[in-house]
Amino acid sequence: MVKAIKKIGVLTSGGDAPGMNACIRAVVRTGIYLGKEVVGIKQGYQGMVDRKFVNMDSHSVCNIIQLGGTILKTARCDEFRTYEGRQKAYKNLKKEGIDALVAIGGDGTFTGAELLSREFDIPVICVPGTIDNDLYGSDFTLGYDTANNTVIEAIDKIRDTAASHDRLFFIEVMGRDSGCIALWAGTAGGAEAILLPEKDTGIEDLIQKLEKGADSNKSSSIVIIAEGDKNGGAYHVAKLVKEKFQFYDIKVTILGHLQRGGSPTSFDRVLASRLGYAAVKALEAGETRKMVGIRGNRVKLTDLVESINNNSFKLEEDLMEMSTILTI
Amino acid sequence: MVKAIKKIGVLTSGGDAPGMNACIRAVVRTGIYLGKEVVGIKQGYQGMVDRKFVNMDSHSVCNIIQLGGTILKTARCDEFRTYEGRQKAYKNLKKEGIDALVAIGGDGTFTGAELLSREFDIPVICVPGTIDNDLYGSDFTLGYDTANNTVIEAIDKIRDTAASHDRLFFIEVMGRDSGCIALWAGTAGGAEAILLPEKDTGIEDLIQKLEKGADSNKSSSIVIIAEGDKNGGAYHVAKLVKEKFQFYDIKVTILGHLQRGGSPTSFDRVLASRLGYAAVKALEAGETRKMVGIRGNRVKLTDLVESINNNSFKLEEDLMEMSTILTI
Amino acid sequence: MVKAIKKIGVLTSGGDAPGMNACIRAVVRTGIYLGKEVVGIKQGYQGMVDRKFVNMDSHSVCNIIQLGGTILKTARCDEFRTYEGRQKAYKNLKKEGIDALVAIGGDGTFTGAELLSREFDIPVICVPGTIDNDLYGSDFTLGYDTANNTVIEAIDKIRDTAASHDRLFFIEVMGRDSGCIALWAGTAGGAEAILLPEKDTGIEDLIQKLEKGADSNKSSSIVIIAEGDKNGGAYHVAKLVKEKFQFYDIKVTILGHLQRGGSPTSFDRVLASRLGYAAVKALEAGETRKMVGIRGNRVKLTDLVESINNNSFKLEEDLMEMSTILTI
Amino acid sequence: MVKAIKKIGVLTSGGDAPGMNACIRAVVRTGIYLGKEVVGIKQGYQGMVDRKFVNMDSHSVCNIIQLGGTILKTARCDEFRTYEGRQKAYKNLKKEGIDALVAIGGDGTFTGAELLSREFDIPVICVPGTIDNDLYGSDFTLGYDTANNTVIEAIDKIRDTAASHDRLFFIEVMGRDSGCIALWAGTAGGAEAILLPEKDTGIEDLIQKLEKGADSNKSSSIVIIAEGDKNGGAYHVAKLVKEKFQFYDIKVTILGHLQRGGSPTSFDRVLASRLGYAAVKALEAGETRKMVGIRGNRVKLTDLVESINNNSFKLEEDLMEMSTILTI
Repeated sequence: MVKAIKKIGVLTSGGDAPGMNACIRAVVRTGIYLGKEVVGIKQGYQGMVDRKFVNMDSHSVCNIIQLGGTILKTARCDEFRTYEGRQKAYKNLKKEGIDALVAIGGDGTFTGAELLSREFDIPVICVPGTIDNDLYGSDFTLGYDTANNTVIEAIDKIRDTAASHDRLFFIEVMGRDSGCIALWAGTAGGAEAILLPEKDTGIEDLIQKLEKGADSNKSSSIVIIAEGDKNGGAYHVAKLVKEKFQFYDIKVTILGHLQRGGSPTSFDRVLASRLGYAAVKALEAGETRKMVGIRGNRVKLTDLVESINNNSFKLEEDLMEMSTILTI
Repeated sequence: MVKAIKKIGVLTSGGDAPGMNACIRAVVRTGIYLGKEVVGIKQGYQGMVDRKFVNMDSHSVCNIIQLGGTILKTARCDEFRTYEGRQKAYKNLKKEGIDALVAIGGDGTFTGAELLSREFDIPVICVPGTIDNDLYGSDFTLGYDTANNTVIEAIDKIRDTAASHDRLFFIEVMGRDSGCIALWAGTAGGAEAILLPEKDTGIEDLIQKLEKGADSNKSSSIVIIAEGDKNGGAYHVAKLVKEKFQFYDIKVTILGHLQRGGSPTSFDRVLASRLGYAAVKALEAGETRKMVGIRGNRVKLTDLVESINNNSFKLEEDLMEMSTILTI
Repeated sequence: MVKAIKKIGVLTSGGDAPGMNACIRAVVRTGIYLGKEVVGIKQGYQGMVDRKFVNMDSHSVCNIIQLGGTILKTARCDEFRTYEGRQKAYKNLKKEGIDALVAIGGDGTFTGAELLSREFDIPVICVPGTIDNDLYGSDFTLGYDTANNTVIEAIDKIRDTAASHDRLFFIEVMGRDSGCIALWAGTAGGAEAILLPEKDTGIEDLIQKLEKGADSNKSSSIVIIAEGDKNGGAYHVAKLVKEKFQFYDIKVTILGHLQRGGSPTSFDRVLASRLGYAAVKALEAGETRKMVGIRGNRVKLTDLVESINNNSFKLEEDLMEMSTILTI
Repeated sequence: MVKAIKKIGVLTSGGDAPGMNACIRAVVRTGIYLGKEVVGIKQGYQGMVDRKFVNMDSHSVCNIIQLGGTILKTARCDEFRTYEGRQKAYKNLKKEGIDALVAIGGDGTFTGAELLSREFDIPVICVPGTIDNDLYGSDFTLGYDTANNTVIEAIDKIRDTAASHDRLFFIEVMGRDSGCIALWAGTAGGAEAILLPEKDTGIEDLIQKLEKGADSNKSSSIVIIAEGDKNGGAYHVAKLVKEKFQFYDIKVTILGHLQRGGSPTSFDRVLASRLGYAAVKALEAGETRKMVGIRGNRVKLTDLVESINNNSFKLEEDLMEMSTILTI
């Protein structure tokens, strides 16, 4: 028989992502609605180890749905990677009376949560919160839509100046292992070419494409490059292209951390609210070691282990093919 | 045997929606890529009746992916509602050599397209383009995400002033028969109450809710009201509430047509590109009288008749329940 | 000899305006830098009467420069309009040890501050904070630039849909006595006509202008109407125009309170910082009953009485003439 | 006696800036209103040399007031730096019947215009168009306000993630010789420190400041660095700081060309309209070799030579001092 949950701990871990605050709000208010206490754990697993707990009531999450970042903060925690660290963390939870967890974050967050839950038999539900959209079991992760919109605003602005000067621009976007942002935002920005970690686009292919554009009188072009692209990042690609393609004025922009911030979009706020709400309902229903995700506009649960182990190619195939055709 | 298509006509009809231009671009470029000619039909069915055709090449749709509205314009057309009108339109299409159609719009657009296709045996694929998200067969319609973001930006701004003055705000959003915008944007905006056409919320219930908020020290509240709400619109609701709830300073804002415009979001641009691309591919594959929609992040075809006849309740049930809980 | 100031009270009063928080931050931090204590007075003069004081340190104003609204809140206060009310307020200030004031707000705020200062000999400096830009002695008031940008974003969005449908739009903006927002935002939005309280534009003139536009093939038009326009507001103007000008589809939008909110623009944040800083420096220099304003990108002091009594026409004349010419 | 002007040429030159299109629109429509013809010269002086002229009517500038970049494009032109180049350009102007010029751009644009006008006796008025705000004779240049707003949006986003991770961020903004953007946007963004080309801030001073912030419990800091700062750019400063200040996680963002683009703000659109309008009125009044600028919210003329030769320190001194105090 499942023991009734009395006090839920909620934390954010890994890189911050827009929507985390909306999700914290949903966890806190759903918990309170269901008669639980809710405790915020500061700075992710580090706060669990260091006993940084803060009691949350309905007012603690007032007026945060629209804020980027995370009010609970986030940090790396090497100690939690050891059994001893997790044991210490668990003892702290116990002392505090926390008997269930909602952990919001990415791959590393899931791994930590899964271990803790298995080793010390505490129920845990994870919410996919990362701008990279690289988690199995959810069509979208918290922050991905906001990051895409931040990138296309930048592309729209750069296109103004690219078109005014007949220039070629290389824009590097986040994504060390995942080309999701590059593909979606590049498609939405009407980029002339998109370089991804998942697909080997040689420099020769890229130059051919740019030459074709130049022949058909395109006077400016924008190339989106995921930071994890095999050719070695925007500066390096620009250097290689410059050698063979001299008549163009080439500029590079690295968007960097501004992609992580910003007020979450409507999509991310609704997604964050649904998943936070569903996480608490899942705990209440006796679930554990699951990720709550969205599939086909419906909330679905996936085993944490399955989500962690599944690195399958996530990019939509029609998008890959289409993005090439639409920039002819 | 299916006759090969040589020339595709593309039109936008009904209310304009952000993403329509991105969709036109996708139709034109996919058509050209597949070796077809593409003709733009101006002002929807009216342009079909009046022969307002314009040849489109790859450059015609350059730099439009980010624009709101529709470069092909849109209009109502009473003539097209008659058999004679459609016959005249069909003759014009034939004279022009147009042997297939992509029609972007809502309910009324679909009905017109379905009739024309059936009566004159011309293949047609429809794309759901309306900010209302009220079409069966697609999780999302073009423009819905952009409209939601426009609404939450307005809510965020109004909350600044509501909180500074301890005020109660009623914000009316679009949606004569559909509460989709009200529900999503209200949820994303953290609205204290949401009134929808699909659900009967009496004034008494609303007042109870607002009183509860006042008791728990909420100093300001925002109520979202879909224009089709049974209580009769924001001004009327405000009047009724004022009578019973006098200690509050109550203000009304009608967002109106600014919800239709604006540069489409990343989500809408990608959706528009995918659906425009898929529409042409569907025609090429011999499909007709279908709507291309998105379901679970995959493109799916639905019979036009099925889409038109299906007025089933579309609001996500978990959202309905959740939106009440999260504003405690 | 001027007595050294030890404790400064800061308040916001009247309608809230973006930039008020940036100004509070500047007052607090400049005060602390100069070795004073700073006390926030909540809800304007009401909080002075009701002793709602809160001690402010450097951290109290951390991360508020970008927030719309006012963290000190604002309210109307009828009691303060009486001598007895002001006496009570002054006694509270004295009890608290507050020996100087910075008051941020509009016309009414200035009048209250001037009276209190004169009657009870407490030094006071005012900062012009109102989106209406209707105060003598400063080229710009806090929030005006932000409000203008909010309005042009709305106009840009509405133009998308106006152009797609060949429609005529009437947009009502704030300004009961002042046409500043209407003139600047109308000019910046490329409005086809602008109706202001300061200038009598008859309906006949407006119709003539719209007809001229229609003749020269303008397919859509946008008319900006200040709420204080003599013709009686956007709904009324639309009704009158409809009677004589039937071939157009006419729509009305009332922007309302969303013009008050939003994160302040760069211009408003810098202005707010400069004026808050200058207000404290002016108190330190022994000034009283002055408004700090910006004239020609330099901070200038103006006597409060002069500012209050001067209702001179503030609209830039070149703008008035120009706005007519640029929409030909 | 001044010869009446019949045909005005308008061009944009140097780096593009938001507001250039609004200015072109004002020049064209004011010219037409005064009975002149107006010709657009493409790609700045290069188009003058290569005869890239395009006739402009009222419709040519329809719906461009809100667009970033420049529809006339801009380019560098080495040929125009020689007498022979300018002679060729002048002959082309004469052949086309262009008897007066409006040139929109920066320092280099002014120098070219001044030479051409003096050597060949053709009247010319310049408009200050550059995001750098580094021209003498105008409080503000076209595009500066928009660039500042682009930068503070980036700062606001980066602060979300800085605060969530307790990080130190270095953000490099445009300004090779001018710290205007760094100072205004840094002030508006609440940056903890600002490094400018005009002021020598040693690394030691910076570190001291950051240490003081750390002592007073600031958990995150943002430092704005103009690209022309004497310490050698953001990457280099970050490297030097890292060596002495190891407990912080330090990140660098280079905003780059996205600062040049984007829809102009209300301020820039109004400024651009006023200056374009005033430029044509000045030509009509017989003026030449002048820059039209804004001083104290009034249009003022300045001799081009005076503007070119005057490199005086333009930064507002109160801002310099204040920006240090407000981040305590």
